[in-house]
Amino acid sequence: MQNIPVSDLPTSVQFDFTTGIFAPALDLSERRISDLAEMYYDQAAVQKMLQGGNPVIYEIRYHPFVTSNSDMSLGVTRLFPGKVGDEYHMTKGHFHERLDQPEIYFCIHGEGYLLLETREGDFRAERWQPGTITHIPPQWAHRVVNTGSDVLFFVASYHIAAGHDYAAVAQRGFAQVVVERDGKPTFVPNPRRQ
Amino acid sequence: MQNIPVSDLPTSVQFDFTTGIFAPALDLSERRISDLAEMYYDQAAVQKMLQGGNPVIYEIRYHPFVTSNSDMSLGVTRLFPGKVGDEYHMTKGHFHERLDQPEIYFCIHGEGYLLLETREGDFRAERWQPGTITHIPPQWAHRVVNTGSDVLFFVASYHIAAGHDYAAVAQRGFAQVVVERDGKPTFVPNPRRQ
Repeated sequence: MQNIPVSDLPTSVQFDFTTGIFAPALDLSERRISDLAEMYYDQAAVQKMLQGGNPVIYEIRYHPFVTSNSDMSLGVTRLFPGKVGDEYHMTKGHFHERLDQPEIYFCIHGEGYLLLETREGDFRAERWQPGTITHIPPQWAHRVVNTGSDVLFFVASYHIAAGHDYAAVAQRGFAQVVVERDGKPTFVPNPRRQ
Repeated sequence: MQNIPVSDLPTSVQFDFTTGIFAPALDLSERRISDLAEMYYDQAAVQKMLQGGNPVIYEIRYHPFVTSNSDMSLGVTRLFPGKVGDEYHMTKGHFHERLDQPEIYFCIHGEGYLLLETREGDFRAERWQPGTITHIPPQWAHRVVNTGSDVLFFVASYHIAAGHDYAAVAQRGFAQVVVERDGKPTFVPNPRRQ
């Protein structure tokens, strides 16, 4: 977002546990299938969704808390349920640009996985349910996958200075993708890396 | 806590929304009335509670997430309901030692206030209910007060490097105290500063 306001005063927002929406938010990003088209392996399914109304896959509300000398920020993502082909809805995923910037994610509602991977290829998947809190160390790319039938939402705490590097993930994805097999979430090697 | 473990791997804990307890925690602090004795203005009430079993006023579970080059941390406080005389249960309150360290508090359950005050005497009180998320800017002392009849619990995200300065608050308290008057939470000037 542009022109982030600076304030040295305490600031509160109100989060709704039933919807995952908080207010006031200073910014809202919507990610449609068109924004994520290259991320999913089944390009025929992507094309069909693009022609079928280009649905929103997830949205993020932000409230940066920028003071004279600090830059903590709040972000809440609502990741809608569904699949692209047999691949579950997921966020873009990103590395932090800065190499010393971690993040805390707090899953409030829904079920799925947090995928993590280093540039060296160390891959992890953290199983998420309501109440799972995960610390994402610096230098681990992170992506959330919604494997449930309801919206998944989570609260993120990070620093604006961390920055977002989406390119590496956009090009290669993660080591594994989460697809539905026999009605269940299943991890398989990423076809885009074969 | 001593000997904080260092790990560059993702770490998850599981938070229980009904109790405010998460596991695994790496440390647990209990604060009894004996730890807070000087904080309350009604010293006769404090003495009575000390003789009556020295009850726990609140407890904090911690999970520091220390990596090779970062130090985010998670803390969850459970502040039990009750009063010392007519002053509602509250946390010690503290400044951060470092002048550039903010913190995010997320009220999950209960009701009360987050009191904030600068060293220059600017005082604020944020009304808390479940879902209130407050950003505490650097250089604002902060204390939580439980004015409800149930436990209040909140999740904190901060950096270990922030440090805790309890002395200034212990000596002077906050500009106002929250007491029960006619059955309702009421702000009055801090008698300890008169």
